[in-house]
Amino acid sequence: MTKTAKVLAISGGIGGAKLALGLQRVLPPGDLAVLVNTGDDFRHLGLAISPDLDTVLYTFAGVANAGAGWGREGETWNFLEELRRIDGPAWFQLGDRDLVVHVERTSRLALGESLTSIMAALGRRFGVPSAILPMTDDAVATLLDTDAGVLEFQEYFVRRRCEPRIRAVRYAGAATATANPALTGLLASPELECVVICPSNPYLSIGPVLAIAGLRDALARCPVPVVVISPIIGGRAVKGPTVKLMRELGVDVSPRSITEHYAGLIDGLVVDSEDMAFASATGVPTLVTPTLMQTLVDREALARAALGFAASLAAAPRLPRTVP
Amino acid sequence: MTKTAKVLAISGGIGGAKLALGLQRVLPPGDLAVLVNTGDDFRHLGLAISPDLDTVLYTFAGVANAGAGWGREGETWNFLEELRRIDGPAWFQLGDRDLVVHVERTSRLALGESLTSIMAALGRRFGVPSAILPMTDDAVATLLDTDAGVLEFQEYFVRRRCEPRIRAVRYAGAATATANPALTGLLASPELECVVICPSNPYLSIGPVLAIAGLRDALARCPVPVVVISPIIGGRAVKGPTVKLMRELGVDVSPRSITEHYAGLIDGLVVDSEDMAFASATGVPTLVTPTLMQTLVDREALARAALGFAASLAAAPRLPRTVP
Repeated sequence: MTKTAKVLAISGGIGGAKLALGLQRVLPPGDLAVLVNTGDDFRHLGLAISPDLDTVLYTFAGVANAGAGWGREGETWNFLEELRRIDGPAWFQLGDRDLVVHVERTSRLALGESLTSIMAALGRRFGVPSAILPMTDDAVATLLDTDAGVLEFQEYFVRRRCEPRIRAVRYAGAATATANPALTGLLASPELECVVICPSNPYLSIGPVLAIAGLRDALARCPVPVVVISPIIGGRAVKGPTVKLMRELGVDVSPRSITEHYAGLIDGLVVDSEDMAFASATGVPTLVTPTLMQTLVDREALARAALGFAASLAAAPRLPRTVP
Repeated sequence: MTKTAKVLAISGGIGGAKLALGLQRVLPPGDLAVLVNTGDDFRHLGLAISPDLDTVLYTFAGVANAGAGWGREGETWNFLEELRRIDGPAWFQLGDRDLVVHVERTSRLALGESLTSIMAALGRRFGVPSAILPMTDDAVATLLDTDAGVLEFQEYFVRRRCEPRIRAVRYAGAATATANPALTGLLASPELECVVICPSNPYLSIGPVLAIAGLRDALARCPVPVVVISPIIGGRAVKGPTVKLMRELGVDVSPRSITEHYAGLIDGLVVDSEDMAFASATGVPTLVTPTLMQTLVDREALARAALGFAASLAAAPRLPRTVP
């Protein structure tokens, strides 16, 4: 990244990356930076795997598997087939093409390079115009207290298909982790126009980011509007375990819970047209617009709507933000 | 390996593995152990690569690419294609299936497991009846002093296609390396019937094995016959840079040079029918038999001939061996 970004997005994997791509497509090259969850990162077969970073990388590079939302388009599975043949741990889907970034990342980490630097290099090699920023270069692990014991994220998400009932979510290491080194400069930059929290899972994808020491505070203090797009549409999540998790945590499945979750952080909420009834009850300025992203046009439209909404908030008197 | 091997083969990659497979096929399961060169081992993309061990593993498991002699049958190259696309170091051919053993080995080594233990586990997983023994668990690197500077083996062999002129061969680390932990027991075992040095490159494949501290001496002292199959047929090498290397080192390209190279170590030499003229001049008991292995039948025939020859040497009075 040679120029300072004008928009900072915060994203997890699949759902968040959809909007992040919309933002990349409607903004001039270099105007977007994305702070990405690394709480799902883990070691598998000794390889350093960063599912959300790679989903954003592939999505931005135009090489993602559009159907699955993760992994590569035109992927092949010969490595995995071979791993299965020798009774290796084949529950995590490692594609032949996908393996390149895991091997490259593992090798560079072993030589002492930071994840931030590695992702910048991968972004350049994949021709990505936006900055992909790991939330931290330190190890943070999203751990789930479940009725099946404490599970690492991928154990819960992939191996156990989100079946165990979650009692609590913890972000091990977050309290002592240092946020991405570019973040402070970015939040203080006069170039920055807004922060967009993508429609990712608030607990499993955005939660780890906000748990990084000082990060939530830095965001709350930043002078530009922070808007969040609700991942809940008409009481449903588009994908993933968001609704199941909200129920297990005893949270009402509605946009109101989203504003409560982000209380003190956000200046505006974007909800789907289906949730118009909630719009007057969210407690923050709320934009009602279609948020379901099925096509590239949907993504671009939501990106434009979110940016326009943020611009309108910047022009209006700001609500006070309180840091909880 | 649950039973003690009766035959110990010493082998490098492609050429040696051909005879080793012949030995495996004519011997009862478990009767063969192969001590394999690891001087070519190197790190590539952070992965621990052991070309000769894997060639033996794949050959013994019946999954080797019979045409190439290295790598897997039915291999695909999507990882490599992707690596090339992001300008990664694609000069070393890593196939999608082949990657499994590199990833597995790297991961286990990082956890502190020995190469010997890892190869034993891989051998079991691939259903291999013979013991595949790395020459050492320590790091030994075959280094080539060439007119293009000092080159690591794979740099010379793969990247530069054996083109630089070799002045000397060194085995860095060999003098302080410890031989495979099973070797002492194997050489002292009353079950052991003979040692067969496969028709591998004497300098680049067998040289590193014999350079391990104490190994050459242990072999010279072992009570059973040691026979070597000449890798030279009618002044030509079947494959690889053997002849070019012998010329560059100023060595006569003939079976006589092979006995001189192994002086003090071997009790018998096997040469090809084409080299019958040399048979009386090698200085050791010499068996003349077809040694070119094009088919499985060829491999089995040569294996039987070598074993029979060794048995005849065991029955006859032994020549004194001197350790140079």
